Amino acid sequence: MLHFAQEDVDDAELERLRGLYGSFTDAVRDLVDATIRTEVDEDTLRAVQGEIEAATARLRTKQLDGPYGVRVTPTGKSMAWGNAAVGLRNAAAPPMVINHDGKGSSWAQVDLGAAYEGPPGLVHGGVAALLLDHILGETGSFGRRTNLTGTIEIKFLRATPLGRLRVEARIDRDEQYKTFVVGSISDAEGVTVEARGVFIVPKWARGKGNLWGSEQ
Amino acid sequence: MLHFAQEDVDDAELERLRGLYGSFTDAVRDLVDATIRTEVDEDTLRAVQGEIEAATARLRTKQLDGPYGVRVTPTGKSMAWGNAAVGLRNAAAPPMVINHDGKGSSWAQVDLGAAYEGPPGLVHGGVAALLLDHILGETGSFGRRTNLTGTIEIKFLRATPLGRLRVEARIDRDEQYKTFVVGSISDAEGVTVEARGVFIVPKWARGKGNLWGSEQ
Repeated sequence: MLHFAQEDVDDAELERLRGLYGSFTDAVRDLVDATIRTEVDEDTLRAVQGEIEAATARLRTKQLDGPYGVRVTPTGKSMAWGNAAVGLRNAAAPPMVINHDGKGSSWAQVDLGAAYEGPPGLVHGGVAALLLDHILGETGSFGRRTNLTGTIEIKFLRATPLGRLRVEARIDRDEQYKTFVVGSISDAEGVTVEARGVFIVPKWARGKGNLWGSEQ
Repeated sequence: MLHFAQEDVDDAELERLRGLYGSFTDAVRDLVDATIRTEVDEDTLRAVQGEIEAATARLRTKQLDGPYGVRVTPTGKSMAWGNAAVGLRNAAAPPMVINHDGKGSSWAQVDLGAAYEGPPGLVHGGVAALLLDHILGETGSFGRRTNLTGTIEIKFLRATPLGRLRVEARIDRDEQYKTFVVGSISDAEGVTVEARGVFIVPKWARGKGNLWGSEQ
């Protein structure tokens, strides 16, 4: 059984923390982009590296022993802030902010820059898979139950350009502890990638609702 | 047709650049980890944020207009340094360093920390998909031809813990311009995730060998 930690913050404090860490993480995300694209000379690069190492050392003076985990507030709000696809504190995540309609469908707008490249100028196929795996899983579990991915199949119809994209998913059907979810990624011209997945409620999570909480 | 740029550096200069940018990117990767795990107070966080923004501004005084792209040296070595799975200059990538046996098989050891979390303490299913998509594609193309992912199917046998993992792939068979590749992720106890994919040589790349170059 996985551990979903309780985080004792009210909604106002949660909003304050979101602003604080969201802004900080955006700054680090911007640095990740600049790290790929910079063409400054070696001396400048070495000087900046020293500054970054000093900044990291300051952050590490007080830190968690391990990964962030998944925390849930008393009002049931999710703080999956380390999550690789949607984590508010994860500068490696785009991050994807998912909108749910409460009837089994969801969508997100994402802007993918230099850090998500595979073929020249295009989204890495594996990044498409990461975003689809996440939105399909979250769509299957949202407000309902705790799913883990069983299988996922991804079909690439054509190349996906870097830039603004729409990611979406909807529940196809349930079969007892399995949920079948379908989804896609689209650019301005239409669908580029399709996915279908089977998500499974593990034994320890059955009958307990959605342990992830109700929101990112 | 995609643009694979020529980068006019010899092997010695390539090694020097690898050291320079590899070290810089490792520092940024360490900051991404600390950004998730830090528990310093708000004043410290705000001060560090200012330093990071200043560092980014210095890097951006001279930079590429867009993503890094894929460059190849005169001796055929690949510089896919912005790549989301293996990019030497991409702090969002683990990065995965792939070893090829030259006979259609490959493997990589990866150490996944806090930035790759999905369920508490576990690797995000979509990160597993990203790594598998990449190694399967590269295994299908290495020394042979230029593939893009057609379809990929991923089966999660059990949860994958964060930490040290082995990722591997091998070519199953070719059918004209399609290559069928299989692979897996393992922890110390054995296989946790299996994948099979079909990779397709696009029309513009047929008969031209592997435009990606021979090494990362």
